[in-house]
Amino acid sequence: MSLLVVGSMALDTITTPHGTHEDILGGAACFFSVGARHFTDLRLVGVIGDDFPEEHVSMLRDRGIDLAGLERRAGAKTFRWTGQYEGRMDVAETLKTELNVLGEFRPTLPSSFTDTPFAFLANGDPVTQAWVADQLADRKFVLLDTMNFWIEGARDALVTAIKKVDGVIMNDEEARALGGSDNLIRAMKNVVELGVRTLIVKKGEHGAVLLQDGELFATPAYPLEEVFDPTGAGDTFASGLMGYVAESGDTSFDGFKRALAYGTIVASFTVEGFGLSRLLEISRADIERRVENFLAFTRF
Amino acid sequence: MSLLVVGSMALDTITTPHGTHEDILGGAACFFSVGARHFTDLRLVGVIGDDFPEEHVSMLRDRGIDLAGLERRAGAKTFRWTGQYEGRMDVAETLKTELNVLGEFRPTLPSSFTDTPFAFLANGDPVTQAWVADQLADRKFVLLDTMNFWIEGARDALVTAIKKVDGVIMNDEEARALGGSDNLIRAMKNVVELGVRTLIVKKGEHGAVLLQDGELFATPAYPLEEVFDPTGAGDTFASGLMGYVAESGDTSFDGFKRALAYGTIVASFTVEGFGLSRLLEISRADIERRVENFLAFTRF
Repeated sequence: MSLLVVGSMALDTITTPHGTHEDILGGAACFFSVGARHFTDLRLVGVIGDDFPEEHVSMLRDRGIDLAGLERRAGAKTFRWTGQYEGRMDVAETLKTELNVLGEFRPTLPSSFTDTPFAFLANGDPVTQAWVADQLADRKFVLLDTMNFWIEGARDALVTAIKKVDGVIMNDEEARALGGSDNLIRAMKNVVELGVRTLIVKKGEHGAVLLQDGELFATPAYPLEEVFDPTGAGDTFASGLMGYVAESGDTSFDGFKRALAYGTIVASFTVEGFGLSRLLEISRADIERRVENFLAFTRF
Repeated sequence: MSLLVVGSMALDTITTPHGTHEDILGGAACFFSVGARHFTDLRLVGVIGDDFPEEHVSMLRDRGIDLAGLERRAGAKTFRWTGQYEGRMDVAETLKTELNVLGEFRPTLPSSFTDTPFAFLANGDPVTQAWVADQLADRKFVLLDTMNFWIEGARDALVTAIKKVDGVIMNDEEARALGGSDNLIRAMKNVVELGVRTLIVKKGEHGAVLLQDGELFATPAYPLEEVFDPTGAGDTFASGLMGYVAESGDTSFDGFKRALAYGTIVASFTVEGFGLSRLLEISRADIERRVENFLAFTRF
C-alpha cells in the first residue's frame, strides 16, 4: 500500500573523519523515500528552491517516487545544513542551518495523496505535522518523528500533533527529554501516556526499542566496522520500518518487531557511504540478505 | 563443574539518587560468588582485613561458597571504595579508593582449588591474573576482566595475562581503549588479535556483544524502569555468564549466547537494590522466569 512522506529536502555539507562532501542531496524526505521505495509506492511532499539541481529531481522520479507534492519555489533557496561528526560519530554537530524555503513549509496535500494509508511525518514543526495529519482521510498508520528543538520549544503543539497520529519515533535522548526521566524505559512509558500507541526509540549504534500497548521489544544495531557518514540514519531507519509496514499492512506487535529489523538494515547501508550514495546502490535482495544475517546475529 | 573466583572483597560506600549506604559488602569476588552460586559450586580466593565483619563471612559460607582461599590479614584493613552515580547512573564516579590489603594481593591457590575447571579472574593487577592462571592445571575456561587503569598503565602485562586465559570480558569503553578504535566492532576485532578466542563486551543499559572465532552476537539489556545501584552489575553479569558455562560445560558459541542471557538477568537483579541486597533475595527460579521473559523480549 502507498506510503507518504512529508519532510525536508536539503543540500548538505558534511564533514566526518572520512572527509568532507559539499552540497550533497539530503533531507528527511529524500532519505526516507529512497529507502522506502524498495518496499512500496512512495509519495513525496517537500519544498525546494530554484537552486536545487534538476538531476536530484530526476533521480527521485526515475526511482518511481510520485513527486506530485514537490513544490519548487521560485526566487528562493533550498534548505541547507552544514554539520560534522568526530570520534565515535554518535553526535552530529550542526555548524550552520539555513532554513530558507523550509521556514514556511505548511503543505496542502495534492488531492491524489489524501487517501494514502501510511505516512511518515519527518521531523519538523509539530503544527505542520498536525496540519498534515488532519488531511489524511483514510489513514491506517501515521508515524511522526521529532527532535529536542520541538520538545523544548513547542511541547504543547507537539503533544497535540502526537495525539493525531498512530506512532512516534525519536531517539533515546529525545525520549528522555519528552518523558521526563533519566531512565529510558520509564521515559518511554511516560511518552506513551501522552497518547502514543506505538513508540519506537532509536539508539544509534545501540539499536532500538519498541513499546506498543504495554509490550516491550528491543534489538541491537547491525554491527559495522566502518561508518562513513551517519547523516540520514534515523530517517532511513524509519524508511525501512514504515516501508515494511506499508508493504505488509501489518501494524501488530509482531509486525513492528520485523519492521524494526528492516529499519535497522536500511539504516546500516545508509551510514556506509556519504549522503545517499550507498543507499542508491543497493537492491531489495541486498536488504533481504542483510536482514537474514541480522536475525541470526540476534537469535539466542 | 566447580567455578573459581579470584578478586576483591570490599566495604563500599555508595551514593545514588536513591540514597547513600555506608560500608556495605562489595567487591568483585563477593558479587560474583553470590551471583554464580545459583548455578554451581563456588570457590573464592580473596583477602580481607580484620575490620571485615564476620557476618559477611558467615553469609558467604552459609550459601555454600568454599572459602578455603579466603585470607584474613591481621593488623590490616579491608579494601574500601567510595563512589557515586548521578543522573542516568551510567558512570561510576570514584570519590575514594583505599586499597589496603588489596595492594599486595598475589594469592597462592589452596591445593584443593588448583583443579578447578572454570575460573573468573576479576579486575585486578594483570601480573596477579597471570600468576593465578598459571596455577590452574586443569582449566577448561578462564575468563579475565580488566579496566582502563590497567589498559593505560600496564598494557604489556595485560596482554601477557590475556594470552594465558580463554576469554576476556570488559566494557565498551575499555574495548575501544584496548582495541584502539572508536568503532566498537573494529576495536573488538583488534582485541581478538591480541590472542583472545572469546571476547565479551558489556555495554550497561545497552546490552552486550560476543565475539568468538570471528562470529558476532549481540543482545540488548533487560529493560528496567528503576535502577537503585549499578555497583556490581559487571561482576554479576560475569557471574551469570560463567555460572551458566560452568554448569553446562558448554563453551561453544551457542553456549555463550545463552550464557549472555543469564549474565544479563543476574545483573538486572543486582541493580534493583543497593550492594548485594537484591541479589541475596532471589532464587534460581526467579532467574529462570526472568530469562524466559528476556528471551521473548528479544525474539523477532
